[in-house]
Amino acid sequence: MKNTYTERLDSVLNNGVTDEEFHEICNAVHPTILASRISELEPERAKFILDKLSIDQVAAIFSHFRKVQSREIAALYPDEVLADIIEKMPHDDRVDLVRQIPVEQRETLLSKIQKVEREDILRLSRYEEETAGAVMTSDYMVLTENMTVEEALNKIRKVAKDRETIYNAYVVHETKRLLGIVSLKDLILFAPNARISEVMFTDVIFARVDEDQEIVANRLSEYDLLALPVVDEHNRMVGIITFDDVMDVRKEEATEDFHKMGSVGLMGVSLKDASIPFLIMKRVPWLLVLVFMNIFSGAGIAYFEDTIEAVVALVFFLPLLIDSGGNAGSQASTLMVRALATGEVKIRDWFKLFSKEIFVAVAIGIIMGLAVSLIGIFRAGPEVAVVVSLTMICCVMVGSLLGMSLPFLLQKFNFDPATASAPLITSLADIAGVVMYFSIATWYLSDKL
Amino acid sequence: MKNTYTERLDSVLNNGVTDEEFHEICNAVHPTILASRISELEPERAKFILDKLSIDQVAAIFSHFRKVQSREIAALYPDEVLADIIEKMPHDDRVDLVRQIPVEQRETLLSKIQKVEREDILRLSRYEEETAGAVMTSDYMVLTENMTVEEALNKIRKVAKDRETIYNAYVVHETKRLLGIVSLKDLILFAPNARISEVMFTDVIFARVDEDQEIVANRLSEYDLLALPVVDEHNRMVGIITFDDVMDVRKEEATEDFHKMGSVGLMGVSLKDASIPFLIMKRVPWLLVLVFMNIFSGAGIAYFEDTIEAVVALVFFLPLLIDSGGNAGSQASTLMVRALATGEVKIRDWFKLFSKEIFVAVAIGIIMGLAVSLIGIFRAGPEVAVVVSLTMICCVMVGSLLGMSLPFLLQKFNFDPATASAPLITSLADIAGVVMYFSIATWYLSDKL
Repeated sequence: MKNTYTERLDSVLNNGVTDEEFHEICNAVHPTILASRISELEPERAKFILDKLSIDQVAAIFSHFRKVQSREIAALYPDEVLADIIEKMPHDDRVDLVRQIPVEQRETLLSKIQKVEREDILRLSRYEEETAGAVMTSDYMVLTENMTVEEALNKIRKVAKDRETIYNAYVVHETKRLLGIVSLKDLILFAPNARISEVMFTDVIFARVDEDQEIVANRLSEYDLLALPVVDEHNRMVGIITFDDVMDVRKEEATEDFHKMGSVGLMGVSLKDASIPFLIMKRVPWLLVLVFMNIFSGAGIAYFEDTIEAVVALVFFLPLLIDSGGNAGSQASTLMVRALATGEVKIRDWFKLFSKEIFVAVAIGIIMGLAVSLIGIFRAGPEVAVVVSLTMICCVMVGSLLGMSLPFLLQKFNFDPATASAPLITSLADIAGVVMYFSIATWYLSDKL
Repeated sequence: MKNTYTERLDSVLNNGVTDEEFHEICNAVHPTILASRISELEPERAKFILDKLSIDQVAAIFSHFRKVQSREIAALYPDEVLADIIEKMPHDDRVDLVRQIPVEQRETLLSKIQKVEREDILRLSRYEEETAGAVMTSDYMVLTENMTVEEALNKIRKVAKDRETIYNAYVVHETKRLLGIVSLKDLILFAPNARISEVMFTDVIFARVDEDQEIVANRLSEYDLLALPVVDEHNRMVGIITFDDVMDVRKEEATEDFHKMGSVGLMGVSLKDASIPFLIMKRVPWLLVLVFMNIFSGAGIAYFEDTIEAVVALVFFLPLLIDSGGNAGSQASTLMVRALATGEVKIRDWFKLFSKEIFVAVAIGIIMGLAVSLIGIFRAGPEVAVVVSLTMICCVMVGSLLGMSLPFLLQKFNFDPATASAPLITSLADIAGVVMYFSIATWYLSDKL
């Protein structure tokens, strides 16, 4: 089986074609493919292509553009047409598009949009970024308790075409309170004259509108749900979060954590779309913070200058020892940051994991100490070897316990645990490592100094 | 709205209750909740609770256990009962459970399972781990081209209860070749007497059975699909991958990448379930590799011992310089590894991104060089400051270009780009940093030596 339509699309975009053939192809191809191919064109050429399509198709394509493309192409449309497109877009995606429009243009644009839709956009855009409210859509199926299954199915049939998702319907009281949930599968299976109140599932898994998007995303995934209803502080239903949005949230959150772990600032745009000054701005601040911290390692070295001058051979082992502490710490913090992010580990687990980490760190320290003692004897004789081995055990222990505890501490005080990045842990472990190394050396080799 | 059943479940598990009440609660509570609560109990107690439930419920709960729990609790069941449970489980989850059974017990267990189901398990377990085949389920809706919409809906109604998902149905030729896909939404909207061949969507997005699970997961998410059909090398349909499995795959893959970036070995179990010896085994090998690499940094230092003895003040700046190179490199590699993993960046983009990175790295290098020159003048006078600034620019550039290129290189030769972990880049940047630093110092300060 070949995706022949997709292949024909590629040749059509390059060579031009009759409008009729173009329509046939665009009807058969998934909007994601259309969006990805069209976004590779120059904005003007993209607009020229989009103009051949229906408003519904353009709306579907717009909801698959990346931020930069949607901003650039939207800028080419007159407000009236853009307003029509926005009205047809999925409720959550259009809010994202409106956010891309320059503020000065936004008000005139919104004034061209129908009142109901405009109010919906304003309502959804009021929620804080990264909360359930900011990710949800207001486009969902509502049923009432005393409907029959047949009535419910008829209602669904009537609106299905314009609904993003119809596979779950939400049973809502007249006060808008969420009472239960019915799946289309259940509706198909139950007798047509059964009441919705008998059919609905009442132990609903839901989200609060102000909950963090990552927590909500993990919940939907944990329960294998197609969508999660969102309620406000009065338990009134205000929207749903669908599985595809959750996938995007989780990808975004994982990317954010990755970047933090590499001590890169919050990006928010694709690496391909990021400009050079933007990348510099996102990378320099952390590098400067880390350099500043490294001054303390330097100060430690300066403080022990006499020891170093007496036994220059010690410098040979310096990178090896302080790096090992940093590496063991990076391992521990990586394990912890990820486990906290997926919800697999909670703050209350700290003590249990800390106790386990002590054993792990001691064992790793001893193994590493033995390994390095061989290098020590070979390079600088038994006395330095003892110093190096002892330091290695201390470095690995301090690094590991620091690496595993810092993410918890950050989470406890409502910072992102991923801030405990490998470079940060490495710098902290370096400072501790320098001090421990030369203290142990000064003490053990005191007869040589 | 409160999850009252869930609350009642908690009190019931602690205090005991009549079987009747227990059944009422278990029917109303999501199996994920039951699984998470029951898995916190001792295995024997868990089995005691499970014995009160129907085989269908136990099967649903088993498919939500983590590996360790499912193994421990399954071990308490006689083969006959376990075989019954396995027959009722989702087709993909039961393969995972069978994998947890000790090999010597597996054959007797399989012999107790019905032939059709047994063959299905064996077929699914034949696919290599981390491929589409290993994640897919063989439980999907099949339609034929010449059915009417009404016939299709009747068929779906008949089997809906036992199907994991009914919202997409697959139109398959008698040779098993995949022809198209129909959503339940379409079936509800089209006229009952329309032919499936007129209704189906033929430009199907699909996966090959031997494709990597991460690529397939990204595809489903990119197209916002509920499920992706999987075909073999002859384009015959062999299974589907559903969105919930894709979420698990993506989580697993992101965790794997995180761990690799922190230079931890492949875990495969939850951090909470990992034993101390297991954790040591997963962490020590990389630490040893990195120590071995650090010997080269040490050797570099040893080579320049004369320079160091002449200007001991140089040692002060050593951690600061080599760490900055490593940190800039970690940033670059993190950005690249993540962009490659999400499919946002492809190997063919290397040259474009490399050119961009050169500008970014030079700019960051100059900023960092200026910052460090201030510290240099203050600590050790203008001459050392020049050496330190020049070295900083070189370190940041080499680190960045190394960090951004290594993931591409690894991908190119079919290794996982995430192997370019922060600690690995740091160690490589250290070696380069030591050599550059003391070479520049020896050259620039030659009159002092």
